[in-house]
Amino acid sequence: MKYISHKELTKMTSRYRAQMINSLSGFKSANLIGTCSKDKANNLAIFSSVVHLGSSPALVGFITRPDTVERHTLNNIKCSQRYTINQVNKSFWREAHQTSARYEADECEFKKTGLTAEYIDNINAPFVKESRLKYALALKEIVPIELNGTLLVIGEVTDIFCDEQAIKADGYLDLESLNTVAITGLDSYHTGSRLSRVSYAKPGCALQDLSVDGEI
Amino acid sequence: MKYISHKELTKMTSRYRAQMINSLSGFKSANLIGTCSKDKANNLAIFSSVVHLGSSPALVGFITRPDTVERHTLNNIKCSQRYTINQVNKSFWREAHQTSARYEADECEFKKTGLTAEYIDNINAPFVKESRLKYALALKEIVPIELNGTLLVIGEVTDIFCDEQAIKADGYLDLESLNTVAITGLDSYHTGSRLSRVSYAKPGCALQDLSVDGEI
Repeated sequence: MKYISHKELTKMTSRYRAQMINSLSGFKSANLIGTCSKDKANNLAIFSSVVHLGSSPALVGFITRPDTVERHTLNNIKCSQRYTINQVNKSFWREAHQTSARYEADECEFKKTGLTAEYIDNINAPFVKESRLKYALALKEIVPIELNGTLLVIGEVTDIFCDEQAIKADGYLDLESLNTVAITGLDSYHTGSRLSRVSYAKPGCALQDLSVDGEI
Repeated sequence: MKYISHKELTKMTSRYRAQMINSLSGFKSANLIGTCSKDKANNLAIFSSVVHLGSSPALVGFITRPDTVERHTLNNIKCSQRYTINQVNKSFWREAHQTSARYEADECEFKKTGLTAEYIDNINAPFVKESRLKYALALKEIVPIELNGTLLVIGEVTDIFCDEQAIKADGYLDLESLNTVAITGLDSYHTGSRLSRVSYAKPGCALQDLSVDGEI
């Protein structure tokens, strides 16, 4: 195995190090976050750092850089207190990646990429019509991470929209059937191939394979 | 599309809701965290919440529940200030899942699952020999998330070990070549199939496909 020391890490070019360190965490989720500014301008940005925080209440977090440079997503969430998270699937992963380009605040990523903004009910943040699993959140807390100035933005899930066929009897959502994609590193996109679902692990009990429906 | 309201979410059984909410974030990383207690007992536990926080310095975080019940991983990290993160691959994903069983503090997950503890240099936390991409961390901060009592544990990457063939010329690590797995929901494991790597996104420029080596 190749060994890379802390000293070697610090000597790498920033781009090389970013590629490598971004690969360490493993497969990452691919999500588009939709927001609306106080001037009613839609914003859409891809994030690979969405993380589950808890189910009761239903809390989802994501990491963002600070707003020392202009961060439209963060600014909009602070202002409107609302946002949407839209899973990226195989039918629009390139458009999703393109949202990471540095557009100006008055340039709409929906228009620039050809994705379709969709408003549902009275939620004042745009959804991505092309996404097959998406949800609205209400901002609960922004936790500063002082070590490097990043922020953990935490929202409570208020409304979920999901293709009905993906919802299994035990509540599991079959992301493969939605063609949801994953990210590795900074720029690689992947679909998933299920090995199996498995039973709840208990000491002294052999795991059992489960079907996608959660049955033995 | 199926619509699920906030009210419906609160009425679900806790198990059903946990399955559904754990599916919302998308594909999650599968990592084993290795620690050592003050009594030199090894502990190994699977986490699906490892998240990239920054490359310079190289910071990686993970979410854990509070230590109001016994949390061996958290207790050991607080004590030793050191831990390892080991990517789970296709050759031992079942053993990795089995570490989530509630073993007692004096029961070693390595022995119980058949995985092999490996000590490297003077790092006082065990690695998983079967893992092909693993790294040691030094604890930097434990950030409390007061909304639900969880904790964001942040470490700085100090030493990386990776199968040499997976390291590409631009620093990207080819996780597919390592057979690294991803998780969806609470209990489903997946390998990845690359759609493509793509170029850095810029306004007004079409994306270009890149090879796994990062070349056009």
